[in-house]
Amino acid sequence: MILDYKRTEDGLDKAARKAEIGRMRAMLVGQQQLIRDAKLPVVVLLEGWDCAGKGNLIRELICEMDPRFFQVKNFGRTPEYEERYPFLKKFFDVLPESGKFLFMDTGWMEDTVGKYLRREITREEYDRRVNSCNIFERQLRDNGYVVVKLFLHISRDEQLRRITALRENRDTQWRVSGDDLWQQQEYEQFLKTYDEFMESTEKTAPWHVLDGENRKTALYDALEAITGTVERAIADGRYEGKPTGYKFPLLGGPSQKDADLTATIDPKKYDKKLRELQEKLAKLHNQIYRKKIPVVICYEGWDAAGKGGNIRRLAYPLDPRGFDVIPIASPTPGEKARHFLWRFWTKLPRSGHIAIFDRTWYGRVMVERIEGFCSENDWQRAYGEINEFERELTDWGAVVIKFWIHIDPDTQLERFEARQNTPEKQWKITDEDWRNRDKWPQYEEAVEDMLQKTSTTYAPWYIIESVDKKYARIRALQIVTDALEKAVEENVTRGIKSIKGKKKEQK
Amino acid sequence: MILDYKRTEDGLDKAARKAEIGRMRAMLVGQQQLIRDAKLPVVVLLEGWDCAGKGNLIRELICEMDPRFFQVKNFGRTPEYEERYPFLKKFFDVLPESGKFLFMDTGWMEDTVGKYLRREITREEYDRRVNSCNIFERQLRDNGYVVVKLFLHISRDEQLRRITALRENRDTQWRVSGDDLWQQQEYEQFLKTYDEFMESTEKTAPWHVLDGENRKTALYDALEAITGTVERAIADGRYEGKPTGYKFPLLGGPSQKDADLTATIDPKKYDKKLRELQEKLAKLHNQIYRKKIPVVICYEGWDAAGKGGNIRRLAYPLDPRGFDVIPIASPTPGEKARHFLWRFWTKLPRSGHIAIFDRTWYGRVMVERIEGFCSENDWQRAYGEINEFERELTDWGAVVIKFWIHIDPDTQLERFEARQNTPEKQWKITDEDWRNRDKWPQYEEAVEDMLQKTSTTYAPWYIIESVDKKYARIRALQIVTDALEKAVEENVTRGIKSIKGKKKEQK
Repeated sequence: MILDYKRTEDGLDKAARKAEIGRMRAMLVGQQQLIRDAKLPVVVLLEGWDCAGKGNLIRELICEMDPRFFQVKNFGRTPEYEERYPFLKKFFDVLPESGKFLFMDTGWMEDTVGKYLRREITREEYDRRVNSCNIFERQLRDNGYVVVKLFLHISRDEQLRRITALRENRDTQWRVSGDDLWQQQEYEQFLKTYDEFMESTEKTAPWHVLDGENRKTALYDALEAITGTVERAIADGRYEGKPTGYKFPLLGGPSQKDADLTATIDPKKYDKKLRELQEKLAKLHNQIYRKKIPVVICYEGWDAAGKGGNIRRLAYPLDPRGFDVIPIASPTPGEKARHFLWRFWTKLPRSGHIAIFDRTWYGRVMVERIEGFCSENDWQRAYGEINEFERELTDWGAVVIKFWIHIDPDTQLERFEARQNTPEKQWKITDEDWRNRDKWPQYEEAVEDMLQKTSTTYAPWYIIESVDKKYARIRALQIVTDALEKAVEENVTRGIKSIKGKKKEQK
Repeated sequence: MILDYKRTEDGLDKAARKAEIGRMRAMLVGQQQLIRDAKLPVVVLLEGWDCAGKGNLIRELICEMDPRFFQVKNFGRTPEYEERYPFLKKFFDVLPESGKFLFMDTGWMEDTVGKYLRREITREEYDRRVNSCNIFERQLRDNGYVVVKLFLHISRDEQLRRITALRENRDTQWRVSGDDLWQQQEYEQFLKTYDEFMESTEKTAPWHVLDGENRKTALYDALEAITGTVERAIADGRYEGKPTGYKFPLLGGPSQKDADLTATIDPKKYDKKLRELQEKLAKLHNQIYRKKIPVVICYEGWDAAGKGGNIRRLAYPLDPRGFDVIPIASPTPGEKARHFLWRFWTKLPRSGHIAIFDRTWYGRVMVERIEGFCSENDWQRAYGEINEFERELTDWGAVVIKFWIHIDPDTQLERFEARQNTPEKQWKITDEDWRNRDKWPQYEEAVEDMLQKTSTTYAPWYIIESVDKKYARIRALQIVTDALEKAVEENVTRGIKSIKGKKKEQK
C-alpha cells in the first residue's frame, strides 16, 4: 500500500532544511534554462486530499521561477454531465511545449477517483479510465515528456481539523465545499481508492507521497522529487519510445489492390441519389445532435483525388451550427513542440457535433515518415498511439469514420495538368504536389501500412474510389449515413451510458 | 426606419435567378483566393429573427466554398450571469486571420438587443454596448477587416407560422425554445429595438436587410451584398485607418523626467514591508475572487530593469488557481495576421482572476513603432485603440494597473555586463538587448509619448523607479494593494452592477 506512509526522518534541522530548500529552488530556476536547451517539456502533477494545501505548495514551488517558462493549471471539479468531451481532452489541451514546466493542481487521478466515488461514473468506466491514464502517461513519456507525480497526504483527523478551522472563520468558511465534507465523511473509501489508483499507475512514472502535515518537509520532498527527476532526464536526453507491441482488434485491410477504380455512377441517377442521401443526413444530424453523439470523419487521399468536393457534398446538408470542417496543414512551431496528437485533441468536436478533418493525424505515418520529419521510432510507434487515440474517441461515444480517397497515378496526372491549364485553378497546384507525385511508390507503401495497421473494428478505414468523383461522393455519403443510422439506433457507448445512468439515479 | 422594409422587385424569373445565384457562388469561391492574395480578412455577420432561417442561409452561402479558407461560428445565447468575460471577447476570439472568411450566426447585435429585451442588462449597459459595437466595427475596418452585415427579416405572422409548424412536428418541436416564444410575443418591442440598434450602427458598415420569407431572394441578396462588398475591398486594397481624434480622460503623464531614480528603501525595512504587503495582497486576492473583480496588471520597462523579480514578488502571495502570468513575445504569424489586440483579448482573465502581463499591447507603440514592424498610421492609431480597449476592460469591471519599470542607461549597462560575466545569467542577455540599448533615445521618446497618450483616469500608468530593485518591488506591491483595496470597497463597475441588479430582480 502506497499511502500507508510514514516519512523517513532525515535528521535535517530547521536551518539546514531552509538552506537545502534554497539550494533546490535555485536549482529549479537553473533547470528552466536547461530544459529549454534539452527541449524537454515537464509536467508536474500534484494530487492529494482536499484541504491538504496543494495551492500553497505550488506557490512555494514556483516562487523563484521565471514566469515565462512555466504555467499553473487548476482542475476544479467538472460535473460529469457538463462535460462534452473525452475526459483526457482537458489534460491534453494544457500540455506544455518543449522547454516549459506545467504544474497541475490535481489532474487525471482526481478526475477518475473523485468522479467514481461521487458516483458520477460507473465502476466499468472507472476501470477504463485507469487504463486510459496509463496509456496517457506512457504516450507522454514516449513523446519526450518528463512527468513528476506528487500526492499530498494528510490524515483524516488532520483534514477534519483544517475543515473546522476554515469553517470557524467567517472569511474562509466559503472555501469549504460540500465535496470537501463528503470526502471527510468517506475518507476511508477515498483512501482505499486513491491507493488502488496509485498502485495501478506506477508503470511509467512513480508516485511521490508528500507528508502534508508538515509544510516544510512536504516542500523539501517535492523539490527533491522534481529537481531529481528533471536532472536525470537532462542527463539521459530526450526519451524516444520504441513502438509498443500492443494488440488491437485489426480488420487487416482494406488494401489499395482491391479497389475497383473503374467504379462509376450513372450521372442521371447521381442527382437523385445525392439529394436522397443529403436529406437523410440532415435528419440524422438532427438526431445525433439531440442524442449528443459526437462524430469524427477523417479524409485522407491522393492530391487531386477530389477530397474538397467530396467534403462539400457531405457538409452541405449539415446545420452549420453543428459541424466544423477542420483543415490540417503542416504543424506550427508550437504544435511541433508538443505531443504530435495535441493539435488534434484540441480540435475534437463537442458531443452531438460533427468534426470533418481535411487531412488528419495520419500525416505522422505518411508525409512525416516519408520526408523524415520524425524519427522511425516516432512513426512506427504512432500506429499504436493512433489506435489508442481513436479508441478513446469511440469509448467516449464517438462515431469515427476514415476515408482514403483513391485514384491512380494517370488520373492524378490528368487532373494536375488540367489545373495547370486553367487559370482560376492554378493556385491549387504547387511544386510540392509535383514533388509528392514523384514519391508515389513510397506513399503507396505508407498508405498500405496505414490501412493494415490502423483499420480497427471500432474505427475502420474505407477506400473511396474516386476516378469518378460523383461515385465517390455517393459512396462516402452512403457510408456516413449508414454509420450514423446505426449509432442512432444503438445509441450506445460507455461514456454516454455512464452519464445517463447517473442522471436516472438522481431522479 | 431600416426594418420598414419591402424588397424591390428585380424582375428576375426563376431560371434567371438560379443562374445568377450560380454565378455569384462561383464568384465567392474565386474571391476566397483573391482575398488570400490581398491579405484581407472578411467577417460576414448574419443577424435576424428567431426561426428566420439563418442556419439554412449560411449553409446555402458556403456550400461551394473551400472549407480550408472559411469558418462558421454560431453564437447561441449565453445567460449574462454565466459570462465571466467582457462581452466583446467572444467576438474578438473568433476573428479570422487575413485571407479567410468568417460567417457568424448572430453576433454583437443579438448579444446586445436580445440581452437588453430579456432584461439581462440595464438600459445604461445597453447604451454602452451600442457604443462598444461601433468602436469594434471601426477598429475592425481600420485594421483591414471587411465586414458585411446582414439582417434576415420576417414578419410577426410568418414567425408564428414557422413556430407553429415546428411545434406540430414531434421531430422538430424541441427546436422551439422559450426564448423564441418570448420573442414572438414581444415582436413589436424587438422590432423597435432591432431597428434602433441598426440605425445607431450604420457608421462603419451598412446593414443589408434580407427578406426571410423568400429563401431564394434572401440568398440572392446576401450573395450580392457579400460578393459586391468583397469585390470593392479587393479593388481598393487593404484599408488602413488614420488615427482618430477621439478624446479620452487623459492624466497627461507621468513623465520619465519626474522620476527620482535615487529612491531607495532601507534593506532592513524591506523584508518586513514585503511580508506585510504580501500578506495583505493574499487577503485581497481572496476578496476579489469572491467579489468576481477581474484584475489586469501590465508590466513594461527597460531591459534589465527588474521586471521578472518584481513580478515574482507580486505573484508569490497569490493563489496559483486565481492568477496567470502571461509572457508576451513577438507575435506568431497567426497573431500578425489578425487585429493587433487579438492576442491580448484572447488572454484576458476571467472575472475574479488576475492576469499579469509581462510585456503588453504597448509593444505596438514601442518596438513595432521603432523597428517599423507596422506603419506610422498603425501605431499612431493604436493609442486610441488601446485607450478604447482598456475602457472596455474597466467598464466590464476590471482594475487595470500599468507599470513602467524605470532605470537609467548607466544602470542598464552595469546589469548587462553583470549578466555577461555570470555564466548562469548569460542566457538573459542577447545581441538584441544590445541593439535595443543603442536605440535608447528613440525608446525614451516612444515611452514618453505612450505615457502622455495612454495614461487615463481609468487605466493610469505608474513609473516604478527600479535602480533599487527592492524599492521598486515595494512600490509596485503598494500600488496594487491600494488599488485592489479601493476596488473591493467600492465594488463598483457597470458590468458587474448590471448582473447583480438582474439577479436581485429574479429573486
